[in-house]
Amino acid sequence: MIITLKPSITKKQLNHIVQKIKDLGFAPHMSKGKMSTIVGVIGENAILTREMFDAMPGIEFVTAISKPYKLASREFKKEDTIVEVSGVKFGGKKVVVIAGPCSVEDRARLLRIAKIVKDAGAQCLRGGAFKPRTSPYSFQGLGELGLKYLREANKITGLPVVTELMSVDQIPLLINYADVLQIGARNIQNFDLLKEAGKTKMPVMLKRGMSTTVKEFLMSAEYVLSQGNYKVILCERGIRTFEDSTRFTLDLNAVPVLKTLSHLPVIVDPSHGVGIRKYVTPMARAAVAAGADGLMIEVHNDPEKALSDGPQSLLPSDFEQMMIEVKAIARAIGRDA
Amino acid sequence: MIITLKPSITKKQLNHIVQKIKDLGFAPHMSKGKMSTIVGVIGENAILTREMFDAMPGIEFVTAISKPYKLASREFKKEDTIVEVSGVKFGGKKVVVIAGPCSVEDRARLLRIAKIVKDAGAQCLRGGAFKPRTSPYSFQGLGELGLKYLREANKITGLPVVTELMSVDQIPLLINYADVLQIGARNIQNFDLLKEAGKTKMPVMLKRGMSTTVKEFLMSAEYVLSQGNYKVILCERGIRTFEDSTRFTLDLNAVPVLKTLSHLPVIVDPSHGVGIRKYVTPMARAAVAAGADGLMIEVHNDPEKALSDGPQSLLPSDFEQMMIEVKAIARAIGRDA
Amino acid sequence: MIITLKPSITKKQLNHIVQKIKDLGFAPHMSKGKMSTIVGVIGENAILTREMFDAMPGIEFVTAISKPYKLASREFKKEDTIVEVSGVKFGGKKVVVIAGPCSVEDRARLLRIAKIVKDAGAQCLRGGAFKPRTSPYSFQGLGELGLKYLREANKITGLPVVTELMSVDQIPLLINYADVLQIGARNIQNFDLLKEAGKTKMPVMLKRGMSTTVKEFLMSAEYVLSQGNYKVILCERGIRTFEDSTRFTLDLNAVPVLKTLSHLPVIVDPSHGVGIRKYVTPMARAAVAAGADGLMIEVHNDPEKALSDGPQSLLPSDFEQMMIEVKAIARAIGRDA
Amino acid sequence: MIITLKPSITKKQLNHIVQKIKDLGFAPHMSKGKMSTIVGVIGENAILTREMFDAMPGIEFVTAISKPYKLASREFKKEDTIVEVSGVKFGGKKVVVIAGPCSVEDRARLLRIAKIVKDAGAQCLRGGAFKPRTSPYSFQGLGELGLKYLREANKITGLPVVTELMSVDQIPLLINYADVLQIGARNIQNFDLLKEAGKTKMPVMLKRGMSTTVKEFLMSAEYVLSQGNYKVILCERGIRTFEDSTRFTLDLNAVPVLKTLSHLPVIVDPSHGVGIRKYVTPMARAAVAAGADGLMIEVHNDPEKALSDGPQSLLPSDFEQMMIEVKAIARAIGRDA
Repeated sequence: MIITLKPSITKKQLNHIVQKIKDLGFAPHMSKGKMSTIVGVIGENAILTREMFDAMPGIEFVTAISKPYKLASREFKKEDTIVEVSGVKFGGKKVVVIAGPCSVEDRARLLRIAKIVKDAGAQCLRGGAFKPRTSPYSFQGLGELGLKYLREANKITGLPVVTELMSVDQIPLLINYADVLQIGARNIQNFDLLKEAGKTKMPVMLKRGMSTTVKEFLMSAEYVLSQGNYKVILCERGIRTFEDSTRFTLDLNAVPVLKTLSHLPVIVDPSHGVGIRKYVTPMARAAVAAGADGLMIEVHNDPEKALSDGPQSLLPSDFEQMMIEVKAIARAIGRDA
Repeated sequence: MIITLKPSITKKQLNHIVQKIKDLGFAPHMSKGKMSTIVGVIGENAILTREMFDAMPGIEFVTAISKPYKLASREFKKEDTIVEVSGVKFGGKKVVVIAGPCSVEDRARLLRIAKIVKDAGAQCLRGGAFKPRTSPYSFQGLGELGLKYLREANKITGLPVVTELMSVDQIPLLINYADVLQIGARNIQNFDLLKEAGKTKMPVMLKRGMSTTVKEFLMSAEYVLSQGNYKVILCERGIRTFEDSTRFTLDLNAVPVLKTLSHLPVIVDPSHGVGIRKYVTPMARAAVAAGADGLMIEVHNDPEKALSDGPQSLLPSDFEQMMIEVKAIARAIGRDA
Repeated sequence: MIITLKPSITKKQLNHIVQKIKDLGFAPHMSKGKMSTIVGVIGENAILTREMFDAMPGIEFVTAISKPYKLASREFKKEDTIVEVSGVKFGGKKVVVIAGPCSVEDRARLLRIAKIVKDAGAQCLRGGAFKPRTSPYSFQGLGELGLKYLREANKITGLPVVTELMSVDQIPLLINYADVLQIGARNIQNFDLLKEAGKTKMPVMLKRGMSTTVKEFLMSAEYVLSQGNYKVILCERGIRTFEDSTRFTLDLNAVPVLKTLSHLPVIVDPSHGVGIRKYVTPMARAAVAAGADGLMIEVHNDPEKALSDGPQSLLPSDFEQMMIEVKAIARAIGRDA
Repeated sequence: MIITLKPSITKKQLNHIVQKIKDLGFAPHMSKGKMSTIVGVIGENAILTREMFDAMPGIEFVTAISKPYKLASREFKKEDTIVEVSGVKFGGKKVVVIAGPCSVEDRARLLRIAKIVKDAGAQCLRGGAFKPRTSPYSFQGLGELGLKYLREANKITGLPVVTELMSVDQIPLLINYADVLQIGARNIQNFDLLKEAGKTKMPVMLKRGMSTTVKEFLMSAEYVLSQGNYKVILCERGIRTFEDSTRFTLDLNAVPVLKTLSHLPVIVDPSHGVGIRKYVTPMARAAVAAGADGLMIEVHNDPEKALSDGPQSLLPSDFEQMMIEVKAIARAIGRDA
């Protein structure tokens, strides 16, 4: 941490700051200059947070130099983490594709879509049984019945199931049905939920919030990791910006940034990110080219009748074509898909 | 709803759209032009959502013309809603000030701050017992003990207590201690929590999320209202933008916008909005001048030692001065404070 | 400037950095710690820019501690700057209101509006003769004819004229007609224009760009000041965010921030900031309550026929009412209007 | 255009609106419903702008249904436009790479870098002679001398020259030296400059502004096209968002969106978009995978000594590796590079 002092600081204020640093068990390093003086405090850990100093008189501003997350950082763990889900490896050489409907609508349709995505090369099945909806008047999901259909689809296709966990009280239910617990974008700073998901020791997929910085995203991952659960998959799904020609602005920059700052696998959800079918495949290709370890794609065999997110779902034939293109990109950068 | 058709639409596609509108019980109104054709669908309600049409072939785009919220709208209720909390009225002539520490830290300090803010003219006491923190290594709140101290402060000062509800399982506990359930910015789209808070029939204060549009904010309020609970107070607390000279960008535009679109009382939290002590009072004045029905202000008698948000807390003397200035502004626009 | 070194830095890289600092005439201050080492470089001036070090091997990151603007800063000049325009003082006790149509449309209308705003208490007249329009097919302004009408309105009413300068080649023309040269939001980083406007030594009003940070805004002001022209007025007019219920997000936080960081007068343009007539007056009141030194308001006596920005123009009666309310707010904070 | 009427509209107001539509030469199409009435106005062109109606009493809101740009749209021209620059084709099968230093610093260095990028496969040379700099104290470019060096580099390598045009008065100079006139992000709404650049009939490369929507970007292109100059290349270079782990947020979504809405070639500048060297190559790969017609890359043989933008410049060896990877991606999607 670096403390820049005000030119007008009094001797008493300075002594007070120096004493506080020493009380916390650190040694202050002073650098006096013509225009201002800085105090370096090195070797700090989580105990020494910026806000302890921010409010002290005589301080111009405080700059953190160590990262606010530890377990999620590349410094903590140099090699890539591989999260294994029933034999499917996230973070390895192969680009993993998770596909399926936005929400589980009925048994027959789910089983049909599961078979379609499996045949086209998907390795995991997605589908929401509980849906967070902006409007209280929209379809809210089938609940446990949806989970049962997902499990049945798993039995038939062998595809592990990724499904959303919306609240702590759903955990006892979901651990019986899900292979990966998905934490949605709207819950990325629901810290209780993150901790409880961590305690399950199950693979957890975190979706970046629409206004979450990369740093905050890794701090949310830290909540899960801090429970001893290292099976965390990060998912970029679009941030909110002024641009309105896409539903969100899929932030592919986050892919190389996250891969640099963290050892965790990073996947991308272009379906929610752009929200418009015809842009999904180009952005899926781009995500893999940027270095993503996987993709999460919505597929529906009758998007017009879909009870949620129809406009962004790929048709089965679109998905098959996307898989061909994504595989070509993966090979071009020395990976498989 | 207005459906703009693609110039290339086929007759079959058009018939399909027209039939769907009729199946839903509405009459399509066609307007053919040289360059494009539009179909008006009027009288729709929540059942007729845009997404049912968005995915249909032959459609250029769909424009909603009715608002996605009903109970929260001025159309539904013309006169201002007044939410009464133990005799304190939000939404009336008087500008209500809620003040107190960010989080409850210890009994003696809370009682002292409560007395200070009461003496300066605050009408409600704030203080968090459960704190959502970005880092798992930060202070997370005193829990039930904090709630007990808040209740005790209420007994001594008579100030009703506003405190944050973070998850559904805390409801049975909080209803015994809180006068107003605060839903934090990070939970504004935690729809389960909104519904359950609605069911308590207690006053609920909703803080706008950092990337929540005004429209989405009102849709979140709709979740509470849809449970038959009309005691909802809206609170603007800053949105996330590119500007980094303040912690968030306090969006005072939202005050006249919300007062126009909705009948619900609107308050402003400049402390979290700007995050820097010296800017809190000017923005508190501005909020009242813009038409806010109240303010939520962090006050601490030793901000340097505060376990959270010290840099943005007003000192007791700052708060007293702020109250004088806010009252002058309130009078200038024909209100009390 | 503070340079944080990579833990993996080699001795050679370190020597290279130290030598570079010395070559530039400064003394490096090293602080070694367990986890990282920082180098403080104090007393630097503009010559020592971050980017000279950013690209050097062995450096984790570089933090600037001195501000990138000098002449615009409060450190450079403690007391408020007052910009005088034909007897009207920006930055003094009185809140100055500039009002008039968005663009000059015809002589009779301009003269009528000028009289209306003068009678209601405005102290300056606004009106664009050259209009930057997003679409090449929109009305682009009357040009020199518009300037002549503005001058005539000045003769009749005595109100100094504020009008937009769009390009360097317009300067010889505008200096004959304008009392204040306005640089529009879209030109805030048109650095040539800023320098040339500075050279005129005329009062210059800078409108913040829609994505300009406060820091960049002051750096743009620095371009004008660096030409020896200290007659600079800053104008907040809304930034671009995700929120779409207003045209832009008027950032009133910028008012106390700019007044703290700089000695220059700060005014606010709520008309462009919100873009919707009914929100202009509440935001005008809020701007003054936040500490703005003035307002810039669009007024039109027939907004429906206005060739630009009709929906945000106040009617004469609205403007008269706004002036009454703004004066009350000004008095409440100990100022005049 | 669709006009949604207020439920409270009076008969007189309605007649007034209807008359105005007729006066403009169009026929109103009314659709009355239980809750509201809409009026469709079809066949309009640029003359019928939203703002003519926005300010009329009785109107709830106005929705544009035709696009505000014509010549730039796919509707106007179905097939891809190919912009040819001295034999290099933008918008064809081959992905074109423009490379070179941010600014021209000295003759020897420029010639060396030009040779390096040519050998690695670049097809155009970039380099700024006039530099827009946020700070008045930063290096501002070599001016005409820089242009001479660029021309000399062209003679030696054969690479056409892309260089920035900052103001109208530079046009007579630049047309003698440049092969492509680049309009920078900060000038994207400098409409005079756009028009004058259009009049030169030279190829013009437009860089999207940091807060320009895709729609506004195309409206700026329309300014150039409206002068009869169809040689326009669009360049995505990052938008401003809340995320600060990259310098800007490179918005690759804009690539498929622009290719869908417009026939103009689209290239991407990841160097300015991310601002950090190690993220440039992954984003260059992703841009091509998303469908970009070209790339613009900063290369410097001694970034540490670069007078501008050193931290984002690729070293020659990085650039060679990037070209190999980009070519592999191009082949994977059936293109060349």
